[in-house]
Amino acid sequence: MKIIVPATSANLGPGFDSLGLSIGLFNEIQITREKLTSISIKGEGSDNLYIKKNNTFVNIFNEIYNSLTNERSNFKFSFLNNIPFSRGLGSSSSVIVAAIASAYKMAGFNIQKDRILNKSLIYENHPDNISPATYGGFTVNIVKNGEVFTKKSNIDSQIQAVVVIPNEPISTSQSRTQLQKNYPLSSCISNLSHSSFLSVCFFEKDYQSLRLAAIDKIHEDIRMSSYPILFKIRQVAYENGALMSTLSGSGSSFLNIVFRDDALRLQKKLQDNFPKFRVLLLEFDNEGFKITSKS
Amino acid sequence: MKIIVPATSANLGPGFDSLGLSIGLFNEIQITREKLTSISIKGEGSDNLYIKKNNTFVNIFNEIYNSLTNERSNFKFSFLNNIPFSRGLGSSSSVIVAAIASAYKMAGFNIQKDRILNKSLIYENHPDNISPATYGGFTVNIVKNGEVFTKKSNIDSQIQAVVVIPNEPISTSQSRTQLQKNYPLSSCISNLSHSSFLSVCFFEKDYQSLRLAAIDKIHEDIRMSSYPILFKIRQVAYENGALMSTLSGSGSSFLNIVFRDDALRLQKKLQDNFPKFRVLLLEFDNEGFKITSKS
Repeated sequence: MKIIVPATSANLGPGFDSLGLSIGLFNEIQITREKLTSISIKGEGSDNLYIKKNNTFVNIFNEIYNSLTNERSNFKFSFLNNIPFSRGLGSSSSVIVAAIASAYKMAGFNIQKDRILNKSLIYENHPDNISPATYGGFTVNIVKNGEVFTKKSNIDSQIQAVVVIPNEPISTSQSRTQLQKNYPLSSCISNLSHSSFLSVCFFEKDYQSLRLAAIDKIHEDIRMSSYPILFKIRQVAYENGALMSTLSGSGSSFLNIVFRDDALRLQKKLQDNFPKFRVLLLEFDNEGFKITSKS
Repeated sequence: MKIIVPATSANLGPGFDSLGLSIGLFNEIQITREKLTSISIKGEGSDNLYIKKNNTFVNIFNEIYNSLTNERSNFKFSFLNNIPFSRGLGSSSSVIVAAIASAYKMAGFNIQKDRILNKSLIYENHPDNISPATYGGFTVNIVKNGEVFTKKSNIDSQIQAVVVIPNEPISTSQSRTQLQKNYPLSSCISNLSHSSFLSVCFFEKDYQSLRLAAIDKIHEDIRMSSYPILFKIRQVAYENGALMSTLSGSGSSFLNIVFRDDALRLQKKLQDNFPKFRVLLLEFDNEGFKITSKS
Protein backbone atom coordinates (compact mmCIF):
# COMPACT_ATOMS: atom_id res chain seq x y z
CA MET A 1 0.00 0.00 0.00
CA LYS A 2 0.96 3.65 -0.39
CA ILE A 3 -0.23 6.51 1.81
CA ILE A 4 0.31 10.22 1.37
CA VAL A 5 -0.11 12.66 4.22
CA PRO A 6 0.04 16.47 4.08
CA ALA A 7 1.99 19.08 5.99
CA THR A 8 -0.15 21.23 8.28
CA SER A 9 0.00 24.64 9.88
CA ALA A 10 -1.51 25.05 13.32
CA ASN A 11 -2.61 27.94 15.57
CA LEU A 12 -3.00 30.42 12.68
CA GLY A 13 -2.42 33.30 15.07
CA PRO A 14 -5.20 33.44 17.68
CA GLY A 15 -6.36 29.82 17.39
CA PHE A 16 -3.80 28.34 19.78
CA ASP A 17 -3.98 24.53 19.95
CA SER A 18 -7.33 24.64 18.12
CA LEU A 19 -7.19 25.85 14.51
CA GLY A 20 -5.19 24.29 11.70
CA LEU A 21 -5.05 23.87 7.95
CA SER A 22 -3.60 21.44 5.46
CA ILE A 23 -0.86 22.28 2.97
CA GLY A 24 -0.14 20.46 -0.29
CA LEU A 25 3.33 19.24 0.70
CA PHE A 26 3.21 15.50 1.23
CA ASN A 27 5.14 12.66 2.78
CA GLU A 28 4.70 9.37 0.92
CA ILE A 29 5.08 6.03 2.60
CA GLN A 30 5.07 2.72 0.74
CA ILE A 31 4.50 -0.39 2.85
CA THR A 32 4.78 -3.96 1.63
CA ARG A 33 4.84 -7.30 3.44
CA GLU A 34 8.27 -8.89 3.40
CA LYS A 35 10.13 -11.65 5.21
CA LEU A 36 12.36 -9.16 6.97
CA THR A 37 11.64 -5.64 8.18
CA SER A 38 13.52 -2.96 6.31
CA ILE A 39 13.46 0.82 6.18
CA SER A 40 14.54 3.15 3.41
CA ILE A 41 14.34 6.94 3.66
CA LYS A 42 14.55 9.51 0.90
CA GLY A 43 14.31 13.24 1.49
CA GLU A 44 14.15 14.70 5.00
CA GLY A 45 15.93 12.47 7.52
CA SER A 46 17.65 10.31 4.91
CA ASP A 47 21.04 11.25 6.33
CA ASN A 48 20.01 10.59 9.94
CA LEU A 49 20.91 7.07 11.13
CA TYR A 50 19.02 7.49 14.40
CA ILE A 51 15.74 8.04 12.54
CA LYS A 52 16.36 4.84 10.61
CA LYS A 53 17.10 2.79 13.73
CA ASN A 54 14.44 4.22 16.02
CA ASN A 55 11.72 5.20 13.60
CA THR A 56 8.61 6.74 15.14
CA PHE A 57 6.42 5.79 12.19
CA VAL A 58 7.47 2.14 12.37
CA ASN A 59 7.10 2.05 16.15
CA ILE A 60 3.54 3.41 16.08
CA PHE A 61 2.62 1.30 13.04
CA ASN A 62 3.77 -1.87 14.79
CA GLU A 63 2.05 -0.99 18.05
CA ILE A 64 -1.29 -0.39 16.32
CA TYR A 65 -0.92 -3.29 13.87
CA ASN A 66 -0.09 -5.72 16.66
CA SER A 67 -2.99 -4.52 18.81
CA LEU A 68 -5.41 -4.97 15.91
CA THR A 69 -4.17 -8.34 14.66
CA ASN A 70 -2.49 -9.93 17.66
CA GLU A 71 0.38 -10.84 15.38
CA ARG A 72 3.76 -9.46 14.53
CA SER A 73 4.54 -9.21 10.81
CA ASN A 74 7.47 -7.88 8.85
CA PHE A 75 7.21 -5.02 6.39
CA LYS A 76 9.33 -3.02 4.08
CA PHE A 77 8.85 0.71 4.74
CA SER A 78 9.91 3.18 2.04
CA PHE A 79 9.70 6.80 3.08
CA LEU A 80 9.74 9.79 0.80
CA ASN A 81 9.82 12.66 3.30
CA ASN A 82 9.03 16.13 1.97
CA ILE A 83 7.84 17.75 5.19
CA PRO A 84 10.77 19.35 7.06
CA PHE A 85 11.38 18.23 10.64
CA SER A 86 10.79 20.54 13.63
CA ARG A 87 9.83 23.54 11.57
CA GLY A 88 6.21 23.87 12.71
CA LEU A 89 4.80 22.17 9.63
CA GLY A 90 3.26 19.20 11.39
CA SER A 91 5.85 16.57 10.49
CA SER A 92 5.32 14.70 13.79
CA SER A 93 1.56 14.73 13.35
CA SER A 94 1.85 13.51 9.78
CA VAL A 95 3.91 10.57 11.01
CA ILE A 96 1.38 9.71 13.72
CA VAL A 97 -1.70 9.99 11.51
CA ALA A 98 -0.14 8.10 8.59
CA ALA A 99 1.30 5.33 10.81
CA ILE A 100 -2.06 4.71 12.47
CA ALA A 101 -4.05 4.87 9.22
CA SER A 102 -1.73 2.49 7.41
CA ALA A 103 -1.69 0.05 10.33
CA TYR A 104 -5.50 -0.08 10.19
CA LYS A 105 -5.34 -0.57 6.44
CA MET A 106 -2.69 -3.32 6.55
CA ALA A 107 -4.67 -5.04 9.32
CA GLY A 108 -7.64 -5.23 6.96
CA PHE A 109 -9.86 -2.54 8.41
CA ASN A 110 -11.83 0.04 6.48
CA ILE A 111 -10.53 3.49 7.18
CA GLN A 112 -12.83 5.65 9.30
CA LYS A 113 -11.17 9.02 9.51
CA ASP A 114 -12.72 10.04 12.85
CA ARG A 115 -11.38 6.82 14.37
CA ILE A 116 -7.87 7.47 13.04
CA LEU A 117 -8.02 11.01 14.40
CA ASN A 118 -9.10 9.97 17.90
CA LYS A 119 -6.39 7.33 17.99
CA SER A 120 -3.86 9.94 16.90
CA LEU A 121 -4.81 12.13 19.86
CA ILE A 122 -3.26 9.51 22.15
CA TYR A 123 0.13 10.18 20.55
CA GLU A 124 -0.24 13.91 20.00
CA ASN A 125 -1.98 15.90 22.74
CA HIS A 126 -3.40 18.66 20.55
CA PRO A 127 -5.82 18.34 17.66
CA ASP A 128 -4.65 21.32 15.61
CA ASN A 129 -2.20 19.42 13.36
CA ILE A 130 -3.59 15.88 13.39
CA SER A 131 -7.07 17.10 12.42
CA PRO A 132 -6.14 18.87 9.16
CA ALA A 133 -3.63 16.05 8.43
CA THR A 134 -6.63 13.71 8.63
CA TYR A 135 -9.39 15.70 6.92
CA GLY A 136 -7.56 18.38 4.93
CA GLY A 137 -8.88 21.91 4.60
CA PHE A 138 -9.25 24.40 7.42
CA THR A 139 -10.44 22.88 10.69
CA VAL A 140 -11.76 24.14 14.05
CA ASN A 141 -11.31 21.58 16.81
CA ILE A 142 -12.50 20.95 20.32
CA VAL A 143 -11.57 18.00 22.53
CA LYS A 144 -14.00 16.35 24.94
CA ASN A 145 -13.23 13.23 26.96
CA GLY A 146 -10.40 12.23 24.66
CA GLU A 147 -12.50 12.71 21.53
CA VAL A 148 -11.86 15.33 18.84
CA PHE A 149 -14.81 17.21 17.34
CA THR A 150 -14.06 18.98 14.11
CA LYS A 151 -15.66 21.58 11.87
CA LYS A 152 -14.03 21.58 8.45
CA SER A 153 -14.19 24.03 5.58
CA ASN A 154 -12.53 23.48 2.21
CA ILE A 155 -10.00 26.13 1.24
CA ASP A 156 -10.72 27.85 -2.06
CA SER A 157 -8.25 27.56 -4.93
CA GLN A 158 -8.12 31.37 -5.23
CA ILE A 159 -5.56 31.40 -2.40
CA GLN A 160 -2.13 29.77 -2.01
CA ALA A 161 0.47 29.37 0.71
CA VAL A 162 3.92 30.93 0.67
CA VAL A 163 5.82 29.14 3.40
CA VAL A 164 9.11 30.51 4.71
CA ILE A 165 11.25 27.79 6.28
CA PRO A 166 14.27 28.99 8.28
CA ASN A 167 17.38 26.85 8.66
CA GLU A 168 17.05 26.51 12.41
CA PRO A 169 14.45 24.22 13.95
CA ILE A 170 12.39 25.18 17.00
CA SER A 171 11.49 22.35 19.35
CA THR A 172 7.77 22.42 20.16
CA SER A 173 8.21 21.22 23.73
CA GLN A 174 10.98 23.73 24.42
CA SER A 175 8.95 26.47 22.80
CA ARG A 176 6.01 25.57 25.03
CA THR A 177 8.00 26.06 28.24
CA GLN A 178 8.61 29.69 27.24
CA LEU A 179 4.91 30.46 27.45
CA GLN A 180 3.38 32.18 30.47
CA LYS A 181 1.25 30.03 32.75
CA ASN A 182 -1.43 32.68 33.16
CA TYR A 183 -2.96 35.29 30.89
CA PRO A 184 -4.93 38.45 31.65
CA LEU A 185 -8.62 38.46 30.82
CA SER A 186 -8.00 40.95 28.00
CA SER A 187 -5.69 38.45 26.23
CA CYS A 188 -8.22 35.63 26.59
CA ILE A 189 -10.96 37.84 25.15
CA SER A 190 -8.76 39.02 22.31
CA ASN A 191 -7.83 35.48 21.30
CA LEU A 192 -11.29 34.00 21.61
CA SER A 193 -12.90 36.80 19.61
CA HIS A 194 -10.22 36.80 16.91
CA SER A 195 -10.15 33.01 16.67
CA SER A 196 -13.94 32.95 16.25
CA PHE A 197 -13.85 35.70 13.65
CA LEU A 198 -11.00 34.01 11.78
CA SER A 199 -12.90 30.72 11.71
CA VAL A 200 -15.93 32.39 10.18
CA CYS A 201 -13.69 34.08 7.58
CA PHE A 202 -12.46 30.65 6.45
CA PHE A 203 -15.97 29.22 6.38
CA GLU A 204 -17.31 32.22 4.44
CA LYS A 205 -14.20 32.30 2.23
CA ASP A 206 -13.79 35.97 3.17
CA TYR A 207 -10.01 35.88 2.80
CA GLN A 208 -9.74 39.68 2.65
CA SER A 209 -10.58 39.85 6.36
CA LEU A 210 -8.02 37.27 7.52
CA ARG A 211 -5.38 39.81 8.47
CA LEU A 212 -7.79 41.71 10.69
CA ALA A 213 -8.55 38.50 12.57
CA ALA A 214 -5.08 36.94 12.69
CA ILE A 215 -4.02 38.74 15.89
CA ASP A 216 -2.64 36.65 18.75
CA LYS A 217 -1.93 37.72 22.35
CA ILE A 218 -0.87 34.37 23.78
CA HIS A 219 2.10 32.74 22.07
CA GLU A 220 3.42 34.37 18.89
CA ASP A 221 5.34 37.31 20.33
CA ILE A 222 7.11 35.30 22.99
CA ARG A 223 8.07 32.56 20.53
CA MET A 224 9.13 34.97 17.81
CA SER A 225 11.24 37.05 20.19
CA SER A 226 13.64 34.14 20.59
CA TYR A 227 14.18 34.34 16.82
CA PRO A 228 13.57 38.00 15.91
CA ILE A 229 14.03 37.66 12.16
CA LEU A 230 10.51 36.20 12.16
CA PHE A 231 9.09 39.67 12.85
CA LYS A 232 10.85 40.86 9.72
CA ILE A 233 9.35 37.99 7.69
CA ARG A 234 5.87 39.00 8.78
CA GLN A 235 6.53 42.62 7.96
CA VAL A 236 7.84 41.87 4.47
CA ALA A 237 4.91 39.52 3.86
CA TYR A 238 2.30 42.11 4.84
CA GLU A 239 4.03 44.77 2.76
CA ASN A 240 3.86 42.52 -0.27
CA GLY A 241 0.31 41.28 -0.51
CA ALA A 242 -0.02 38.62 2.20
CA LEU A 243 -3.62 38.21 3.34
CA MET A 244 -2.42 36.63 6.56
CA SER A 245 1.02 35.96 7.99
CA THR A 246 1.34 33.81 11.11
CA LEU A 247 3.87 31.66 12.89
CA SER A 248 3.28 28.07 11.77
CA GLY A 249 2.70 25.96 14.86
CA SER A 250 5.48 26.78 17.29
CA GLY A 251 7.74 27.78 14.39
CA SER A 252 10.25 28.26 13.03
CA SER A 253 8.30 28.40 9.72
CA PHE A 254 6.02 31.24 8.75
CA LEU A 255 2.75 30.65 6.89
CA ASN A 256 1.70 33.37 4.49
CA ILE A 257 -1.66 33.18 2.76
CA VAL A 258 -1.97 35.07 -0.49
CA PHE A 259 -4.26 35.41 -3.51
CA ARG A 260 -3.03 33.27 -6.41
CA ASP A 261 -2.39 36.36 -8.54
CA ASP A 262 0.00 37.79 -5.94
CA ALA A 263 1.69 34.55 -4.97
CA LEU A 264 4.73 34.50 -7.25
CA ARG A 265 5.57 38.09 -6.47
CA LEU A 266 5.33 37.45 -2.72
CA GLN A 267 7.47 34.34 -3.02
CA LYS A 268 10.14 36.26 -4.91
CA LYS A 269 10.12 39.18 -2.44
CA LEU A 270 10.49 36.85 0.52
CA GLN A 271 13.21 34.82 -1.19
CA ASP A 272 15.11 38.01 -2.07
CA ASN A 273 14.86 39.25 1.52
CA PHE A 274 15.74 35.94 3.14
CA PRO A 275 18.08 34.24 0.68
CA LYS A 276 19.25 31.60 3.16
CA PHE A 277 15.74 30.34 3.92
CA ARG A 278 13.58 28.06 1.84
CA VAL A 279 10.53 29.88 0.46
CA LEU A 280 7.96 27.49 -0.98
CA LEU A 281 4.88 28.36 -3.00
CA LEU A 282 2.29 25.67 -2.27
CA GLU A 283 -1.35 24.80 -2.82
CA PHE A 284 -3.66 24.11 0.08
CA ASP A 285 -4.93 20.55 0.49
CA ASN A 286 -8.59 19.66 1.09
CA GLU A 287 -8.35 15.88 1.43
CA GLY A 288 -5.98 15.01 4.26
CA PHE A 289 -4.19 11.66 4.25
CA LYS A 290 -5.00 9.43 1.32
CA ILE A 291 -4.29 5.79 0.64
CA THR A 292 -3.43 5.84 -3.03
CA SER A 293 -2.78 2.19 -3.88
CA LYS A 294 -3.71 -1.07 -2.26
CA SER A 295 -0.90 -3.32 -3.29
CA MET B 1 -40.57 58.70 14.30
CA LYS B 2 -40.80 55.30 15.94
CA ILE B 3 -37.87 52.95 16.56
CA ILE B 4 -37.92 49.40 17.83
CA VAL B 5 -34.84 47.75 19.28
CA PRO B 6 -34.43 44.10 20.33
CA ALA B 7 -33.25 42.43 23.51
CA THR B 8 -29.92 40.63 23.15
CA SER B 9 -28.04 37.82 24.82
CA ALA B 10 -24.25 38.08 25.02
CA ASN B 11 -21.33 35.74 25.74
CA LEU B 12 -23.28 32.56 24.85
CA GLY B 13 -20.98 30.54 27.10
CA PRO B 14 -17.41 30.63 25.78
CA GLY B 15 -17.72 33.80 23.69
CA PHE B 16 -17.05 36.24 26.52
CA ASP B 17 -17.44 39.91 25.44
CA SER B 18 -17.48 38.77 21.80
CA LEU B 19 -20.51 36.70 20.75
CA GLY B 20 -24.14 37.76 20.95
CA LEU B 21 -27.55 37.23 19.42
CA SER B 22 -30.77 39.14 19.04
CA ILE B 23 -34.08 38.15 20.63
CA GLY B 24 -37.53 39.15 19.45
CA LEU B 25 -38.46 41.13 22.55
CA PHE B 26 -38.53 44.81 21.69
CA ASN B 27 -38.51 48.23 23.26
CA GLU B 28 -40.45 50.81 21.25
CA ILE B 29 -39.69 54.49 21.38
CA GLN B 30 -41.82 57.16 19.75
CA ILE B 31 -40.22 60.58 19.29
CA THR B 32 -41.96 63.72 18.09
CA ARG B 33 -40.91 67.36 18.01
CA GLU B 34 -42.79 69.46 20.57
CA LYS B 35 -42.49 72.85 22.19
CA LEU B 36 -41.58 71.30 25.51
CA THR B 37 -39.64 68.15 26.30
CA SER B 38 -41.72 65.41 27.91
CA ILE B 39 -41.22 61.77 28.78
CA SER B 40 -43.77 59.01 29.23
CA ILE B 41 -42.84 55.44 30.14
CA LYS B 42 -44.94 52.29 29.88
CA GLY B 43 -43.72 48.85 30.91
CA GLU B 44 -40.34 48.35 32.59
CA GLY B 45 -39.31 51.42 34.57
CA SER B 46 -42.74 53.09 34.45
CA ASP B 47 -42.88 53.12 38.25
CA ASN B 48 -39.37 54.54 38.64
CA LEU B 49 -39.28 58.32 38.98
CA TYR B 50 -35.49 58.47 38.78
CA ILE B 51 -35.55 56.93 35.31
CA LYS B 52 -38.01 59.56 34.20
CA LYS B 53 -35.95 62.41 35.60
CA ASN B 54 -32.52 61.24 34.58
CA ASN B 55 -33.25 59.23 31.47
CA THR B 56 -30.21 57.65 29.79
CA PHE B 57 -31.95 57.43 26.42
CA VAL B 58 -32.86 61.12 26.47
CA ASN B 59 -29.39 62.15 27.66
CA ILE B 60 -27.61 60.23 24.88
CA PHE B 61 -30.17 61.30 22.27
CA ASN B 62 -29.68 64.97 23.17
CA GLU B 63 -25.89 64.68 23.23
CA ILE B 64 -25.79 63.13 19.76
CA TYR B 65 -28.55 65.30 18.31
CA ASN B 66 -26.87 68.47 19.56
CA SER B 67 -23.49 67.41 18.23
CA LEU B 68 -24.98 66.69 14.79
CA THR B 69 -27.16 69.78 14.48
CA ASN B 70 -25.54 72.33 16.77
CA GLU B 71 -29.01 73.12 18.06
CA ARG B 72 -31.09 72.13 21.04
CA SER B 73 -34.66 71.07 20.27
CA ASN B 74 -37.49 69.74 22.36
CA PHE B 75 -39.08 66.34 21.87
CA LYS B 76 -41.75 64.20 23.32
CA PHE B 77 -40.38 60.73 24.12
CA SER B 78 -42.84 57.87 24.63
CA PHE B 79 -41.23 54.64 25.80
CA LEU B 80 -42.80 51.21 25.71
CA ASN B 81 -40.18 49.13 27.56
CA ASN B 82 -40.45 45.36 27.24
CA ILE B 83 -36.81 44.45 27.95
CA PRO B 84 -36.28 43.91 31.69
CA PHE B 85 -33.58 46.02 33.41
CA SER B 86 -30.33 44.49 34.72
CA ARG B 87 -31.22 40.93 33.82
CA GLY B 88 -28.52 40.31 31.21
CA LEU B 89 -30.84 40.90 28.27
CA GLY B 90 -29.07 43.93 26.87
CA SER B 91 -31.46 46.63 28.07
CA SER B 92 -28.64 49.18 28.47
CA SER B 93 -27.30 48.42 25.01
CA SER B 94 -30.75 48.71 23.47
CA VAL B 95 -31.09 52.16 25.01
CA ILE B 96 -27.69 53.26 23.68
CA VAL B 97 -28.18 51.92 20.16
CA ALA B 98 -31.74 53.22 19.84
CA ALA B 99 -30.90 56.65 21.27
CA ILE B 100 -28.00 57.12 18.84
CA ALA B 101 -29.91 55.80 15.83
CA SER B 102 -32.94 57.99 16.50
CA ALA B 103 -30.77 61.07 17.07
CA TYR B 104 -29.17 60.54 13.66
CA LYS B 105 -32.60 60.06 12.14
CA MET B 106 -34.14 63.14 13.77
CA ALA B 107 -31.09 65.16 12.72
CA GLY B 108 -31.85 64.24 9.11
CA PHE B 109 -29.11 61.69 8.48
CA ASN B 110 -29.49 58.42 6.63
CA ILE B 111 -28.94 55.51 8.97
CA GLN B 112 -25.69 53.61 8.39
CA LYS B 113 -25.73 50.74 10.82
CA ASP B 114 -21.94 50.41 11.11
CA ARG B 115 -21.73 54.07 12.05
CA ILE B 116 -24.41 53.70 14.72
CA LEU B 117 -22.59 50.65 16.10
CA ASN B 118 -19.20 52.37 16.31
CA LYS B 119 -20.77 55.37 18.02
CA SER B 120 -22.48 53.00 20.48
CA LEU B 121 -19.10 51.53 21.44
CA ILE B 122 -18.21 54.87 23.03
CA TYR B 123 -21.06 54.39 25.52
CA GLU B 124 -20.78 50.62 25.96
CA ASN B 125 -17.29 49.15 26.11
CA HIS B 126 -18.10 45.73 24.66
CA PRO B 127 -19.58 44.90 21.27
CA ASP B 128 -21.44 41.72 22.23
CA ASN B 129 -24.83 43.34 22.97
CA ILE B 130 -24.73 46.49 20.83
CA SER B 131 -23.79 44.50 17.71
CA PRO B 132 -26.80 42.13 17.64
CA ALA B 133 -29.03 45.02 18.80
CA THR B 134 -27.84 46.81 15.65
CA TYR B 135 -27.78 44.02 13.07
CA GLY B 136 -29.94 41.24 14.56
CA GLY B 137 -29.04 37.57 14.19
CA PHE B 138 -25.98 35.89 15.68
CA THR B 139 -22.84 38.00 15.58
CA VAL B 140 -19.10 37.47 16.14
CA ASN B 141 -17.31 40.69 16.98
CA ILE B 142 -13.79 42.02 17.22
CA VAL B 143 -12.75 45.54 18.15
CA LYS B 144 -9.80 47.35 16.59
CA ASN B 145 -8.88 50.97 17.28
CA GLY B 146 -12.36 51.76 18.54
CA GLU B 147 -14.06 50.16 15.55
CA VAL B 148 -16.28 47.08 15.70
CA PHE B 149 -15.93 44.42 13.00
CA THR B 150 -18.83 41.99 12.80
CA LYS B 151 -19.63 38.69 11.16
CA LYS B 152 -23.37 38.05 11.18
CA SER B 153 -25.42 34.96 10.51
CA ASN B 154 -29.19 34.87 10.43
CA ILE B 155 -30.77 32.52 12.95
CA ASP B 156 -33.05 29.91 11.42
CA SER B 157 -36.74 29.84 12.32
CA GLN B 158 -36.44 26.17 13.32
CA ILE B 159 -35.14 27.30 16.74
CA GLN B 160 -36.62 29.50 19.44
CA ALA B 161 -35.50 31.01 22.72
CA VAL B 162 -36.87 30.08 26.13
CA VAL B 163 -35.62 32.81 28.44
CA VAL B 164 -35.77 32.39 32.21
CA ILE B 165 -35.81 35.75 34.01
CA PRO B 166 -35.25 35.61 37.78
CA ASN B 167 -36.70 38.25 40.09
CA GLU B 168 -33.31 39.51 41.25
CA PRO B 169 -31.14 41.66 39.01
CA ILE B 170 -27.37 41.20 38.71
CA SER B 171 -25.36 44.37 38.15
CA THR B 172 -22.95 43.89 35.25
CA SER B 173 -20.23 46.06 36.79
CA GLN B 174 -20.50 44.29 40.15
CA SER B 175 -20.54 40.91 38.42
CA ARG B 176 -17.40 41.87 36.53
CA THR B 177 -15.44 42.57 39.70
CA GLN B 178 -15.98 38.96 40.80
CA LEU B 179 -13.98 37.67 37.85
CA GLN B 180 -10.37 36.58 38.20
CA LYS B 181 -7.75 38.87 36.72
CA ASN B 182 -5.74 36.02 35.21
CA TYR B 183 -6.58 32.70 33.63
CA PRO B 184 -4.52 29.55 33.05
CA LEU B 185 -3.56 28.74 29.48
CA SER B 186 -5.90 25.73 29.51
CA SER B 187 -8.90 28.01 30.16
CA CYS B 188 -7.89 30.37 27.35
CA ILE B 189 -7.54 27.47 24.95
CA SER B 190 -10.84 25.94 26.03
CA ASN B 191 -12.72 29.19 25.50
CA LEU B 192 -11.10 30.12 22.21
CA SER B 193 -11.67 26.69 20.71
CA HIS B 194 -15.25 26.41 21.95
CA SER B 195 -16.10 29.97 20.93
CA SER B 196 -14.75 29.31 17.43
CA PHE B 197 -16.62 26.01 17.16
CA LEU B 198 -19.84 27.60 18.45
CA SER B 199 -19.56 30.41 15.90
CA VAL B 200 -19.24 27.92 13.06
CA CYS B 201 -22.26 26.00 14.41
CA PHE B 202 -24.37 29.17 14.12
CA PHE B 203 -23.06 29.94 10.64
CA GLU B 204 -23.64 26.34 9.48
CA LYS B 205 -27.00 26.20 11.31
CA ASP B 206 -25.77 23.03 13.02
CA TYR B 207 -27.84 23.64 16.13
CA GLN B 208 -27.48 20.03 17.31
CA SER B 209 -23.81 20.70 18.14
CA LEU B 210 -24.39 23.88 20.15
CA ARG B 211 -24.35 22.14 23.52
CA LEU B 212 -21.00 20.52 22.83
CA ALA B 213 -19.53 23.94 22.08
CA ALA B 214 -21.27 26.02 24.78
CA ILE B 215 -18.68 25.31 27.47
CA ASP B 216 -17.13 28.26 29.29
CA LYS B 217 -14.15 28.31 31.67
CA ILE B 218 -13.92 32.05 32.31
CA HIS B 219 -17.01 33.64 33.78
CA GLU B 220 -20.15 31.47 34.05
CA ASP B 221 -19.31 29.36 37.09
CA ILE B 222 -18.12 32.26 39.20
CA ARG B 223 -21.12 34.37 38.29
CA MET B 224 -23.62 31.55 38.75
CA SER B 225 -22.17 30.53 42.11
CA SER B 226 -23.38 33.82 43.61
CA TYR B 227 -26.89 32.73 42.61
CA PRO B 228 -26.81 28.92 42.65
CA ILE B 229 -30.37 28.32 41.43
CA LEU B 230 -28.99 29.14 37.96
CA PHE B 231 -27.17 25.78 37.91
CA LYS B 232 -30.52 24.14 38.49
CA ILE B 233 -32.09 26.07 35.60
CA ARG B 234 -29.37 24.83 33.26
CA GLN B 235 -29.81 21.26 34.46
CA VAL B 236 -33.58 21.29 33.98
CA ALA B 237 -33.15 22.90 30.55
CA TYR B 238 -30.68 20.26 29.35
CA GLU B 239 -32.86 17.46 30.72
CA ASN B 240 -35.80 18.78 28.73
CA GLY B 241 -34.59 19.34 25.21
CA ALA B 242 -32.49 22.51 25.35
CA LEU B 243 -29.90 22.61 22.55
CA MET B 244 -27.89 25.15 24.50
CA SER B 245 -28.33 26.73 27.91
CA THR B 246 -26.09 29.64 28.91
CA LEU B 247 -26.04 32.57 31.29
CA SER B 248 -27.33 35.59 29.37
CA GLY B 249 -24.70 38.30 29.56
CA SER B 250 -23.71 38.62 33.21
CA GLY B 251 -27.14 37.28 34.26
CA SER B 252 -29.38 36.88 36.00
CA SER B 253 -31.37 35.57 33.00
CA PHE B 254 -30.71 32.25 31.35
CA LEU B 255 -30.94 31.78 27.59
CA ASN B 256 -32.12 28.39 26.40
CA ILE B 257 -32.13 27.57 22.71
CA VAL B 258 -34.53 24.88 21.60
CA PHE B 259 -36.06 23.41 18.45
CA ARG B 260 -39.50 24.89 17.78
CA ASP B 261 -41.17 21.50 18.27
CA ASP B 262 -39.75 21.18 21.80
CA ALA B 263 -40.17 24.80 22.82
CA LEU B 264 -43.59 24.77 24.52
CA ARG B 265 -42.70 21.68 26.53
CA LEU B 266 -39.43 23.22 27.70
CA GLN B 267 -41.15 26.47 28.61
CA LYS B 268 -43.73 24.58 30.69
CA LYS B 269 -41.08 22.45 32.44
CA LEU B 270 -39.04 25.50 33.37
CA GLN B 271 -42.11 27.43 34.51
CA ASP B 272 -43.24 24.47 36.65
CA ASN B 273 -39.79 24.17 38.24
CA PHE B 274 -39.29 27.89 38.77
CA PRO B 275 -42.79 29.25 39.38
CA LYS B 276 -41.58 32.60 40.73
CA PHE B 277 -39.52 33.43 37.63
CA ARG B 278 -40.72 34.71 34.28
CA VAL B 279 -40.23 32.11 31.56
CA LEU B 280 -40.72 33.60 28.09
CA LEU B 281 -40.93 31.74 24.80
CA LEU B 282 -39.54 34.07 22.14
CA GLU B 283 -38.50 34.17 18.50
CA PHE B 284 -35.01 35.20 17.48
CA ASP B 285 -34.67 38.47 15.61
CA ASN B 286 -32.60 38.88 12.43
CA GLU B 287 -33.02 42.59 11.78
CA GLY B 288 -31.76 44.55 14.77
CA PHE B 289 -33.12 48.04 15.46
CA LYS B 290 -35.67 49.27 12.97
CA ILE B 291 -37.16 52.67 12.34
CA THR B 292 -40.75 51.83 11.59
CA SER B 293 -42.36 55.17 10.86
CA LYS B 294 -41.02 58.54 9.86
CA SER B 295 -43.62 60.83 11.30
